[in-house]
Amino acid sequence: MKIDAARFLKDLHDLRAIGAAGVGKGVVRPAYSEADIEGRAWIAGRMRAAGLRVEMDAMGNLFGLADGPSILMGSHSDSQPEGGWLDGALGVIAALEVARAAQEAGGPAVSVVSFQDEEGRFGVTTGSAVWSGQLDQDAADALEDDAGVPLGEARKAMGDMVTGPVDPSQFTGYIELHIEQGPTLDDSGEQIGVVSDIVGIRDMKVTFKGQQNHAGTTPMQVRKDAFQAVSEFNTLLNDRLRNVVTPTTVWTIGHVSLHPNASSIVPGKAVFSMQWRDGDSDRLARMEEIIRETADEVAKSRGMELSYSTMLGLEPVAMDARLRDALAQGADVVAPGKWRKMPSGALHDATNVARLMPVAMLFVPSINGISHAFEEDTGEDDLVAGVKVLAEAVAAL
Amino acid sequence: MKIDAARFLKDLHDLRAIGAAGVGKGVVRPAYSEADIEGRAWIAGRMRAAGLRVEMDAMGNLFGLADGPSILMGSHSDSQPEGGWLDGALGVIAALEVARAAQEAGGPAVSVVSFQDEEGRFGVTTGSAVWSGQLDQDAADALEDDAGVPLGEARKAMGDMVTGPVDPSQFTGYIELHIEQGPTLDDSGEQIGVVSDIVGIRDMKVTFKGQQNHAGTTPMQVRKDAFQAVSEFNTLLNDRLRNVVTPTTVWTIGHVSLHPNASSIVPGKAVFSMQWRDGDSDRLARMEEIIRETADEVAKSRGMELSYSTMLGLEPVAMDARLRDALAQGADVVAPGKWRKMPSGALHDATNVARLMPVAMLFVPSINGISHAFEEDTGEDDLVAGVKVLAEAVAAL
Repeated sequence: MKIDAARFLKDLHDLRAIGAAGVGKGVVRPAYSEADIEGRAWIAGRMRAAGLRVEMDAMGNLFGLADGPSILMGSHSDSQPEGGWLDGALGVIAALEVARAAQEAGGPAVSVVSFQDEEGRFGVTTGSAVWSGQLDQDAADALEDDAGVPLGEARKAMGDMVTGPVDPSQFTGYIELHIEQGPTLDDSGEQIGVVSDIVGIRDMKVTFKGQQNHAGTTPMQVRKDAFQAVSEFNTLLNDRLRNVVTPTTVWTIGHVSLHPNASSIVPGKAVFSMQWRDGDSDRLARMEEIIRETADEVAKSRGMELSYSTMLGLEPVAMDARLRDALAQGADVVAPGKWRKMPSGALHDATNVARLMPVAMLFVPSINGISHAFEEDTGEDDLVAGVKVLAEAVAAL
Repeated sequence: MKIDAARFLKDLHDLRAIGAAGVGKGVVRPAYSEADIEGRAWIAGRMRAAGLRVEMDAMGNLFGLADGPSILMGSHSDSQPEGGWLDGALGVIAALEVARAAQEAGGPAVSVVSFQDEEGRFGVTTGSAVWSGQLDQDAADALEDDAGVPLGEARKAMGDMVTGPVDPSQFTGYIELHIEQGPTLDDSGEQIGVVSDIVGIRDMKVTFKGQQNHAGTTPMQVRKDAFQAVSEFNTLLNDRLRNVVTPTTVWTIGHVSLHPNASSIVPGKAVFSMQWRDGDSDRLARMEEIIRETADEVAKSRGMELSYSTMLGLEPVAMDARLRDALAQGADVVAPGKWRKMPSGALHDATNVARLMPVAMLFVPSINGISHAFEEDTGEDDLVAGVKVLAEAVAAL
């Protein structure tokens, strides 16, 4: 099977012109916007030209179907409000090129998908969440964007393209090519990342309640300073997690809210976010133990009240071994010595699709790790290398 | 000289009834409010009954003047929006009682003052700031309260009580009795604090600018996390200041603002307040050096930008040795073994008055260290002890 690099790159640049931001290669193509609908109509035309049968479900997920059982490939063509040209679009156009190359080579059967609202105008990966049964259509329709528009209203704009439900049982697996959106491959000079798993997330709010006091008249030794509690917790935690984590584990305190948050008042209360991500459920659980033990210890030693919000938990999704191995073998052919196995720290449509079938993912580098911004870019040789690895893998399945 | 404890306490409770909050002993008597004006009119009546000549300057600072050179004593009778019955009022009524007792004893001459807006409806200790020449009347008049009312408008409400400027040169010194507003005396079971100095303050905002990033795709080792910088700075600073400070030095990070302050984003920017207070200018300067060195070190090691706001500096005010010694001797007589020398961590009118004449201050305990709240209270035996120390000191001068 031989991919046509020029045809692939021309399609990618043609799609970029739809909703072009006019700043660098940026695009503005949020879910259900005019540009998004125009983009999906254009993709549907390219699917038909490639001999695929075009179908769209009620959410606006767009499929180009091969006959009989097939492997599904793709990503999404909606963008962030200020997005790059590759986030999602790369996976869709790469899938289209592999489908064409496979047809030209006499097989195997490759279908193509562009999921809707991966970028979360209305929620988190809502298109693939509905298709995979994670989210009811009714519940999805009630979701509103930042301007208060319900998804149920917004999706009417592409109602005349809808054909009906698309049966997942026709697909033998799902492979998604995506830009890394982080700096790892760009820093190491590698071309390809074969994803081992999409990491799980734990996220909660933690509250220390101490005693609000006058910052002039309250001696240090009697203070119950909630910011000091957060800082001590953070310092202890960083130290204790080192023994448990891997180089790809991440943890973040991204939100801190002090009360009353005034320079002359010892803070009586601190609410902060504690988020951690890892590909292994057991490690996530061990980290949770350490987090709760450490917060408890700090609260006790400082005479403070400690409370937690409900914890949000998304389980890690391991990539299917057979599909992943096929991608790894393809990477060995296309980019020998210039690829690695790595987890995906971000969520993708593949997380939802994994409920239905075996899934795997492939990354190409993001220059300077930048994404969700007009500056997002990847070298064209890396883009082509990604498509070639997909083709090698599909041919070998 | 013999003070009349019952007369003193009755006056204190009578003043409390003016603007009584209806919650415990709380009062609501903010500067220029109806209750404040009624309170000042009532105090003026008590001054006249004590044979003092009543004068009020344009700001609403109320004086009860003895003939000839005199020692000035007092505090303020305006309250916080939700205030206690003793903050300010105690110093005014105690001064009135000492003036009466001194007259009954045939001397010395004691004048009484209630400064206006000590609680800062319009600024910081604005009444004594204007009287001491720290602040122009015109500049003061332009100050607005939280509702946008200019001081120049508000003070018209007591215009018919104004007699004109009050010459500071008639006073030989100023002594202010105040509640501690902190827990030190209450915790130690002592009755009296002889103030050594009103501490100086340094206050500024510090900004660490790092790199905002995705909390899932950005590995720990490449992050430039602004919250981590604040936390490390705080931890290092606490350790380094220990070698420089005294048990009464305080330092506070009371305000922290992260950007964009979201749980899934590595914070790219942190602005926080750094405030420190001490009675010694050299120590304040040494602390500043350590603060700037530590912030600089953290910024360098993490590859971050560091910037500072303009630093607010109020110099420490040492109490006059002669007045302070007189108070200490009085404390030895009234509360032997149950008093201490201590700094004032809060600002008081005495800070401004120190520009004009020798000043000294005396503290009585605050139960549980609570002030600026309806629950504010002090045992009546401690209140009386405070007045007795004033009387002893004045008699000895």
